[in-house]
Amino acid sequence: MTTGENSIAGEWQAAGGDFFHSVDPRTRQTGETRFYSATAQEIDAAVRAAADAFSSTRLFPATTLADFLDTSAEEIEASADALIATADAETALGSVRLNGELARTTGQLRAFSALLREGSHVEAVIDSALPDRTPLPRPDIRRMLLPLGPVAVFSASNFPFAFATAGGDSAAAFAAGCPVIVKGHPGHPATSELFAHAINAAVSACGFPPGYFSLLQGDGHDVGRILVEHPFLEAVGFTGSLRGGRALHDVAAQRPRPIPVFAEMGSINPVVITAGALAERGDEIVQGLAASATLGVGQFCTNPGLVLLPAGEAASAFIAASRDAMLASESGILLNASVESGLAQGVARSAALDNVQTHVHEDATQAEGFSYPHTVMQTDAATFVENADLQEEHFGPVTLFVTWKGDEELDRVLRSLSGQLTGSIHCGNEEAESLRPLLDALREKVGRLVWNGYPTGVEVTAAMQHGGPWPASNAAGTTSVGTNAIRRFMRPVAWQDLPDELLPEALQNSNPLGIVRLVNGELTREPLS
Amino acid sequence: MTTGENSIAGEWQAAGGDFFHSVDPRTRQTGETRFYSATAQEIDAAVRAAADAFSSTRLFPATTLADFLDTSAEEIEASADALIATADAETALGSVRLNGELARTTGQLRAFSALLREGSHVEAVIDSALPDRTPLPRPDIRRMLLPLGPVAVFSASNFPFAFATAGGDSAAAFAAGCPVIVKGHPGHPATSELFAHAINAAVSACGFPPGYFSLLQGDGHDVGRILVEHPFLEAVGFTGSLRGGRALHDVAAQRPRPIPVFAEMGSINPVVITAGALAERGDEIVQGLAASATLGVGQFCTNPGLVLLPAGEAASAFIAASRDAMLASESGILLNASVESGLAQGVARSAALDNVQTHVHEDATQAEGFSYPHTVMQTDAATFVENADLQEEHFGPVTLFVTWKGDEELDRVLRSLSGQLTGSIHCGNEEAESLRPLLDALREKVGRLVWNGYPTGVEVTAAMQHGGPWPASNAAGTTSVGTNAIRRFMRPVAWQDLPDELLPEALQNSNPLGIVRLVNGELTREPLS
Repeated sequence: MTTGENSIAGEWQAAGGDFFHSVDPRTRQTGETRFYSATAQEIDAAVRAAADAFSSTRLFPATTLADFLDTSAEEIEASADALIATADAETALGSVRLNGELARTTGQLRAFSALLREGSHVEAVIDSALPDRTPLPRPDIRRMLLPLGPVAVFSASNFPFAFATAGGDSAAAFAAGCPVIVKGHPGHPATSELFAHAINAAVSACGFPPGYFSLLQGDGHDVGRILVEHPFLEAVGFTGSLRGGRALHDVAAQRPRPIPVFAEMGSINPVVITAGALAERGDEIVQGLAASATLGVGQFCTNPGLVLLPAGEAASAFIAASRDAMLASESGILLNASVESGLAQGVARSAALDNVQTHVHEDATQAEGFSYPHTVMQTDAATFVENADLQEEHFGPVTLFVTWKGDEELDRVLRSLSGQLTGSIHCGNEEAESLRPLLDALREKVGRLVWNGYPTGVEVTAAMQHGGPWPASNAAGTTSVGTNAIRRFMRPVAWQDLPDELLPEALQNSNPLGIVRLVNGELTREPLS
Repeated sequence: MTTGENSIAGEWQAAGGDFFHSVDPRTRQTGETRFYSATAQEIDAAVRAAADAFSSTRLFPATTLADFLDTSAEEIEASADALIATADAETALGSVRLNGELARTTGQLRAFSALLREGSHVEAVIDSALPDRTPLPRPDIRRMLLPLGPVAVFSASNFPFAFATAGGDSAAAFAAGCPVIVKGHPGHPATSELFAHAINAAVSACGFPPGYFSLLQGDGHDVGRILVEHPFLEAVGFTGSLRGGRALHDVAAQRPRPIPVFAEMGSINPVVITAGALAERGDEIVQGLAASATLGVGQFCTNPGLVLLPAGEAASAFIAASRDAMLASESGILLNASVESGLAQGVARSAALDNVQTHVHEDATQAEGFSYPHTVMQTDAATFVENADLQEEHFGPVTLFVTWKGDEELDRVLRSLSGQLTGSIHCGNEEAESLRPLLDALREKVGRLVWNGYPTGVEVTAAMQHGGPWPASNAAGTTSVGTNAIRRFMRPVAWQDLPDELLPEALQNSNPLGIVRLVNGELTREPLS
């Protein structure tokens, strides 16, 4: 039974008069449930409860936090059927995709659990005292990471599980020991509500303070703004549009006490295809690229929206074949009305530019649900470099092909690029060595370089970097995917000359947790002698 | 020969008409040299040259960067006599202190050099491919840190060597491979100029591109603002006042493409003294505290400006003795007119509050130079909690004693504290166990906890944390002192499925650099098999 209420520290409430509805993307029909936007009082109560919860969870052992993550994963799995059915009705992403995303989501929670049980993520560093140093003795100094405090997480529309209520940002914050207040995405409020039940169950089962998790619903900007302005909030995680991320960045930066926002925003994920690759594997790349570009109706932050090729007959044939492959794919259902209207406006701006050719899938407007025809645009390097508008992300099934003439023009294109989550290169068998300058130029613009592959599909591993220079992210020094994301929600503290028994276990002489520590310059699990 | 010019990528220039002078703090006399504020064109030239330099330095091996740091240290040592004499004339800090600070400054450069030669600071992580994984194979993913790009460093007034032209921020940025544009502090422009010669000499000797370093002089806010607004700049390091740091934070946050500012700002560094400590070591702590509070005429970011004691006779006696010890110390010379006037205004505001008693060193106004009498203020916990103004940093020789009644009132005081660089606790022999709640409360407010010691004296080690929650810093997740500071100026990049020979050496299978890497979850220096 979906109630449409907000979950404030385990209590379901709907004190406000503003409400909105779920919309079925396949039919454009609104559902019956009224989802009530959280009121200012409810937001305040959620953040205060989170601050209260933090006063105990900040001292929880890592294994206790790990138990909570594991229990959350189990509770989510216990509701898997309902979650997938509900999310499919709200997003039209389909059960195959949603089954995979659910596994990824529980996998993320368990990956952080494993990180915590190993325990070295606190980055313990010990520099022993040097009592005989002259002119002054050196004190004993030890450092480790501590959790920041209450974190606001803004759900993304396109990953109702993996970047949402119990998604990557929430998992990272929970793992750090930080209470989480989720601002649910208005595109899938019933899914958010189901997830909140699962997390609340884990909070109860593990005996955590109820303020460790709250869910706030809302379909305007007010809930998010009031939340980010709250004086007790310590950090913000966001996945979404550049406009949305920028707005939250600005609110947080203008606070009397600014707090960090970790926003993953826009990217067009350039794919460079060399002459050698065109000659040796052109047909194969046509298929691979079309599959990557049309995956999820193009609604991925890693969607390959920009393809760069050397001008010539081979490129013309490649673009024609890609166009056929992309436009032949059935028009999918988009997530919501906002994605649909955003595409219409954005593509119209790009298509209106001189020297940009646009090809549109023909039978797309027949769809009953939210949809947009797969659109292929083409232009030359000079036009691309001169029109910053062509770097705007079209969130959906839109692919821009740009042809360059000569290395110098390619270099100009690469230099003109704004920051990207990813950059991919397809090359021929004999070309690798000659591509060093291209690789070196592209790596300055991206968070991840992909070789002879496609940007969609983000592995959740320790080595993953999901982020990149602005506007891909506003925090290029951090990642939003992979276990390293826990670092966003922790800060270092040093202890000077503390008695051993008053130090956190991670820093005690005997190394009771058995973690890896940097002791006087050496990484070791050994105790201090 | 001091010329008063700006050093733009190795060229000495003074294109503008605005100039200012050095002032001798001991006599208030202005020097003869005209120091020319950098023009907008000079600032632009410096940042563009830095961006050009970065296109090569970003690919330099760590050992090449280490050579540059070592050479810079040697060049600074070669000018030690001139540097100390010049800085003493501009800051009145005295040759003993400045000798120590010079050693610290070259020590910092060499500490980063050692970090680079060891090489593991790039935080290499490798997750090998899993070609047989179902439903999809996992690609090979490898991550390491890369430098950010051109960095602006704002010198502090109170550390003309260690937090200035070749100070901690510059050393960390240089170590990362980032070109540095220093905005010199107007309080010691001749010292900045001498340092610029030393660094320029190292740039030449090591064959680095000249844009790797520039020095911009200026005595208003324009140079800094124009610098931070420059589109080619990637990050900012700052040490100074809350007002200055906040202003730069705001400028950087409001850019079309925001960039990170790492600002170390205000702190009053609370010192808690328990009943047991008063009884057992009261006299000793009076002397230690007075020495720490009067060190450098109180002009340290770690100056103990707030002392918390349990109300009673012992506290009254301690405060009286501290007052005598602090007020008995000879009035020192302040750095500049701005410190002097800031103290007068700030102390007047605090002293005007009801229930605040103020004691002032008597013979201080006789000083010819910039000075302010050591000032001791005293109030109770309730007054402190109710008046946020009492948490304002008085940069100089000002100490506020606050007495509390009972654990609950102490807890209220600790909760009311804004973020601090440090917090110190002095306790008696039998009290340690009972102080866990106090330690746990205080650690939430600070970057470093000091046990039975004083906050002044910041060790440059791997374990040091110099920073803390706002307003101590706007980047509590990072440190400005110690080798970990290099992390501020680097960002992670992941490589997916790259051929081994095209990977950076740090990520190649054979581990040619012999660094520690996290390989499939294990920290190891072994090559990949």
